Amino acid sequence: MDNRPIGVFDSGLGGLTAVRELQRLLPGEDIIYFGDTGRVPYGGRSRDTIIRYARQDVAFLRTFDLKAIVIACGTVSTTALDVLAAENDIPVWGVVEPAAAAAAAATRNGRVGLIGTQATIRSGAYERCIAQAAPRTEVMAAACPLFVPLVENGRFRRGDVVVETVAGEYLAPFRAAGVDTLVLGCTHYPLLTEVIGHCMGPKVTLIDVGRQCADAVAGHLRDRDALGQPGRTGESRYYVSDSAEDFSRLASIFLRRNVEETVKQVEIWNY
Amino acid sequence: MDNRPIGVFDSGLGGLTAVRELQRLLPGEDIIYFGDTGRVPYGGRSRDTIIRYARQDVAFLRTFDLKAIVIACGTVSTTALDVLAAENDIPVWGVVEPAAAAAAAATRNGRVGLIGTQATIRSGAYERCIAQAAPRTEVMAAACPLFVPLVENGRFRRGDVVVETVAGEYLAPFRAAGVDTLVLGCTHYPLLTEVIGHCMGPKVTLIDVGRQCADAVAGHLRDRDALGQPGRTGESRYYVSDSAEDFSRLASIFLRRNVEETVKQVEIWNY
Repeated sequence: MDNRPIGVFDSGLGGLTAVRELQRLLPGEDIIYFGDTGRVPYGGRSRDTIIRYARQDVAFLRTFDLKAIVIACGTVSTTALDVLAAENDIPVWGVVEPAAAAAAAATRNGRVGLIGTQATIRSGAYERCIAQAAPRTEVMAAACPLFVPLVENGRFRRGDVVVETVAGEYLAPFRAAGVDTLVLGCTHYPLLTEVIGHCMGPKVTLIDVGRQCADAVAGHLRDRDALGQPGRTGESRYYVSDSAEDFSRLASIFLRRNVEETVKQVEIWNY
Repeated sequence: MDNRPIGVFDSGLGGLTAVRELQRLLPGEDIIYFGDTGRVPYGGRSRDTIIRYARQDVAFLRTFDLKAIVIACGTVSTTALDVLAAENDIPVWGVVEPAAAAAAAATRNGRVGLIGTQATIRSGAYERCIAQAAPRTEVMAAACPLFVPLVENGRFRRGDVVVETVAGEYLAPFRAAGVDTLVLGCTHYPLLTEVIGHCMGPKVTLIDVGRQCADAVAGHLRDRDALGQPGRTGESRYYVSDSAEDFSRLASIFLRRNVEETVKQVEIWNY
């Protein structure tokens, strides 16, 4: 039994899709969330800058006595997991490994697609991980740099010609290649599930990396008897590097609950 | 006569549209440019964060012996000019005043439109400035938060249904209101001149804030006999907070010249 909180971080808001899954699967766990809203988005930045920012995000989270850290960000998971895992004496979980295992298990024709930010695609992390899990699987990958700004501007619904046109362009090569499984390699993308699902058709399995990661973390903690005391009610606290008010407004879209009173601002550049 | 360089900064690449105008108008001037590519975009961030970042940007530029600073960023000009001007003993120029004067002079029906980032619109800076220059002018303003990511992803050309749809939505209220002058209040927007111009029609005057600002700076330096020695050839050096290589590639779109050898990376969080 371990009542210490789980630390979760993301470049901004997207990681809340993973928090929602963790809260659903593990209602007894305390969660400390950090969203780097003062420096979002990470996906178009260089590897060095992403590693520098991620180290500061983890340094802030480690001011709490945590039992594990979850990188609820596709860009950081693919670019900085090795560095962060080597530097920390508690488990550090990224979204790649669970999602790669899920994709390898889901594909029937051995053709898996991957969409993510520029940094995620550049890293090659999913390809390496899927090749280990299922060596004969072909992975086709493409960056979708406009998906994050579109989601953050509320343009993720079916019937919106802008997001449907952008999705159609990004996804056309995957349709042409006949992938039967598509990894949504960024924690913002679950909000686009209907748009992407409609574009790819009902026979393509979509892998939500935040959900897969939450599943894996839950299993890991359960296996090691590291969950909180049975019957306790977990609390979540949220920290951000830009205005707490602005975050609270948008967070409700991702979490479907009001978080206003539990959000505080952090000077992340001091960590 | 004053051979010291002019410092110019922006949240990222957009300010290069103003640099290009300065280089055209004042080929004998040295320019030090800083683009905060490690923290771009500023337009959706809070006032406090924008002021904090802008102070660091200026602190870096002031490690050079400058004769003036140009804020080639609509967001910083509207949100932090007062603070920066009060803290510095050399002239600090923003884009608002020259563009407001140009809009007040251009309008015939007294209806001026303004588009910019969320921070620019929230500031009310253009409204105050235009009200001083032409008290009877009505100003209608709207944020266009997707224009910057669209431009940075190369989607600024006519015939692209995505940018044309977004522009059509953002600009419909201005067409309905019958504005005859539209201030493009962000230094990224000149790349959208054809899309916006086609949407608004040929009778609407578009005000390029970077160009107006460069004109004003040139006039100001000339009037005060503060230009560099006649006949000298100015040099421009570029500094960024993320990868110099990534910047060099994109900068060519804005400057229409190769800058690869003159770009260096700066640790802006240390200033």
